[in-house]
Amino acid sequence: MSSQAPHPTLLIPGPIEFDDAVLQSMSHYAESHVSPAFVKTFGETLTLLRKLFQSTNPAAQPFVIAGSGTLGWDVVASNLIEKGEDALVLHTGYFADSFAACLQTYGANATQLKAPIGERPSFEEIELALKEKPYKVITITHVDTSTGVLSDIKRIAEIVRRVSPDTLVVVDGVCSVGCEEIAFDEWDLDVVLTASQKAIGCPPGLSILLMSGRAIDRFKTRQSPPASYYASLGNWLPIMQNYENLKPSYFATPPTQLVHALHTTLSQITSRPLAERFATHAQASDRIKAAVADLGLKQLATKPENQAHAMTAIWLPEGLTPPDVLPRLLKRGVIFAAGLHKEAATKYIRFGHMGVSVTDPGRKDIDNAITALKEAMTEAKQAKGQ
Amino acid sequence: MSSQAPHPTLLIPGPIEFDDAVLQSMSHYAESHVSPAFVKTFGETLTLLRKLFQSTNPAAQPFVIAGSGTLGWDVVASNLIEKGEDALVLHTGYFADSFAACLQTYGANATQLKAPIGERPSFEEIELALKEKPYKVITITHVDTSTGVLSDIKRIAEIVRRVSPDTLVVVDGVCSVGCEEIAFDEWDLDVVLTASQKAIGCPPGLSILLMSGRAIDRFKTRQSPPASYYASLGNWLPIMQNYENLKPSYFATPPTQLVHALHTTLSQITSRPLAERFATHAQASDRIKAAVADLGLKQLATKPENQAHAMTAIWLPEGLTPPDVLPRLLKRGVIFAAGLHKEAATKYIRFGHMGVSVTDPGRKDIDNAITALKEAMTEAKQAKGQ
Repeated sequence: MSSQAPHPTLLIPGPIEFDDAVLQSMSHYAESHVSPAFVKTFGETLTLLRKLFQSTNPAAQPFVIAGSGTLGWDVVASNLIEKGEDALVLHTGYFADSFAACLQTYGANATQLKAPIGERPSFEEIELALKEKPYKVITITHVDTSTGVLSDIKRIAEIVRRVSPDTLVVVDGVCSVGCEEIAFDEWDLDVVLTASQKAIGCPPGLSILLMSGRAIDRFKTRQSPPASYYASLGNWLPIMQNYENLKPSYFATPPTQLVHALHTTLSQITSRPLAERFATHAQASDRIKAAVADLGLKQLATKPENQAHAMTAIWLPEGLTPPDVLPRLLKRGVIFAAGLHKEAATKYIRFGHMGVSVTDPGRKDIDNAITALKEAMTEAKQAKGQ
Repeated sequence: MSSQAPHPTLLIPGPIEFDDAVLQSMSHYAESHVSPAFVKTFGETLTLLRKLFQSTNPAAQPFVIAGSGTLGWDVVASNLIEKGEDALVLHTGYFADSFAACLQTYGANATQLKAPIGERPSFEEIELALKEKPYKVITITHVDTSTGVLSDIKRIAEIVRRVSPDTLVVVDGVCSVGCEEIAFDEWDLDVVLTASQKAIGCPPGLSILLMSGRAIDRFKTRQSPPASYYASLGNWLPIMQNYENLKPSYFATPPTQLVHALHTTLSQITSRPLAERFATHAQASDRIKAAVADLGLKQLATKPENQAHAMTAIWLPEGLTPPDVLPRLLKRGVIFAAGLHKEAATKYIRFGHMGVSVTDPGRKDIDNAITALKEAMTEAKQAKGQ
């Protein structure tokens, strides 16, 4: 039995449903941010992140900062690239536009490599672009939450290392960390940034990053000072190193309750083989995508290799918009999200399938959602005389 | 009976002890950040902030952003002043140095008006400085958490309006909002920034601001784009306006659980006259300061008019350092903080007296802390043979 009040099941691409223990750790009594007990919790949390990212290289450093996932873009844009330098932004939806805007705020030149909605730039296009200019960073949205398009970061990282070895590989993993495989060391990545409220299964409010030694060296040898204060690695790097070494440290007060929740969920996630978790998400995704096809519906991401395993973005039939469908899902106890991509928001809906809704065999969230989707679509079409 | 596990009483200058209901609202089940229920909670929270700041001017706008209090400095420095423009920073401790560093990160020239530890710049010095240059902003730390020095923001704002009417009056209220009087409209302030975890009595993780119409106009007429992405008013202003008008809106996922906690504590605080709350804090402060004097101890803030009402920074006798005293307090179930001011950190301790520890008559936190302080000092002196 859940300790939570009855509520509709939240199946959007984040925030997601919480495990009871995670939620309960939010109501931890007040603690000093420099008390030995909290320092231990925070230090362990950082170390657990290394496990989640499959990184054992001590030169890499995890960060947990009060802020939304968006803040991770600022950390990259204000520390790892300088004014007038070039960034290559791979565009698979809404979030690349925003990352590019962030890079430009701090003076970098962002070149976007765009693909049509539901597609992704080809490996050939990426290779060609990398040969054109000495890009300081390449950014990849691992899963674009607006389209459900998955990028192949392993393969892209290989191309970068072969063609332009000094380019930092930056992965926006906001909608992928915790449900899509990421092998930080093995794939030779430089930054993976994410947020707490998606597949990690923690309430929102934490910006989470893992940064390679190469990225940290790039920061340390930059010519100009960091272009942000709150997002400055100069301010945060010693803090994170100290906490991991169980030494209290202060730059800004950490969000103690959220750190407890993160500690709980990371302990749960890393207590089992990650490969098992990724496989479970892939199986649920396959089942959902088959059900969507059975309903005669198409996904924004058309090619199987482009399809995220933790969310499905579904085109509505001609004549239907999200307000025709979402209230009918809610009536059945299920919450999906409307579209988000600027050019098509009114034409599709998004089904998030992450975390406990997928991994907890005691929950029937996915089955219920598939049934609800079927019924809601039928009802919506009937209401429109289709 | 508290629903919280037994724990030592946290009497540092933030985070502070939580009310049970506030803490319980942290474990609210997962909600979409754009659901009608959450939009209502967030919208009401923003409106409650107007009450807390005693502002009814619709041109002013409250903001609640995922981040620590530090982020508020970035909001000011990257939106309300431009590269090469001048800021006057009144220095009453550690936090002015940091605010100045933040302003400089974004290109402003920060001139600090310093006072010795425990003192504050005189009104004459402030007036003289304002006559020297057309400062775009003046920043005042209402209560410097490192020294417990209180600034007279009402009087300083009067001087600014008389001598340099275009200068924006920016108040760092991180350690004052909720326990020291702030009459935003009446005192004609431009920005008050604060954080959730001090006298507001909410867990840490929220940067909170109220901004005047004049400040917003300054932002809207700036020549250069905002110098930060995550802290950009261009990104946040429409979001806050929408939420307050109960319209869902998205720039970055808000920290839904923390917003619930903030809603709960603001509802509690504003359900009674604020003047009563400030008086209760002042009475507790008087009692604590008298007890400190009885022990023969001196405060960093020597003059009564310089003394904060929500914390007391206490010089230790010659030969004693925080590690001689703090563990002895902890043994008695009370947590104080060590010093923080760079030049004197090892020579003093800080006693925070805010929120429920002061306002809940059912709690004996202050009495217990005074007793514990007496015993701990005696024991520490004996141990040193004093």
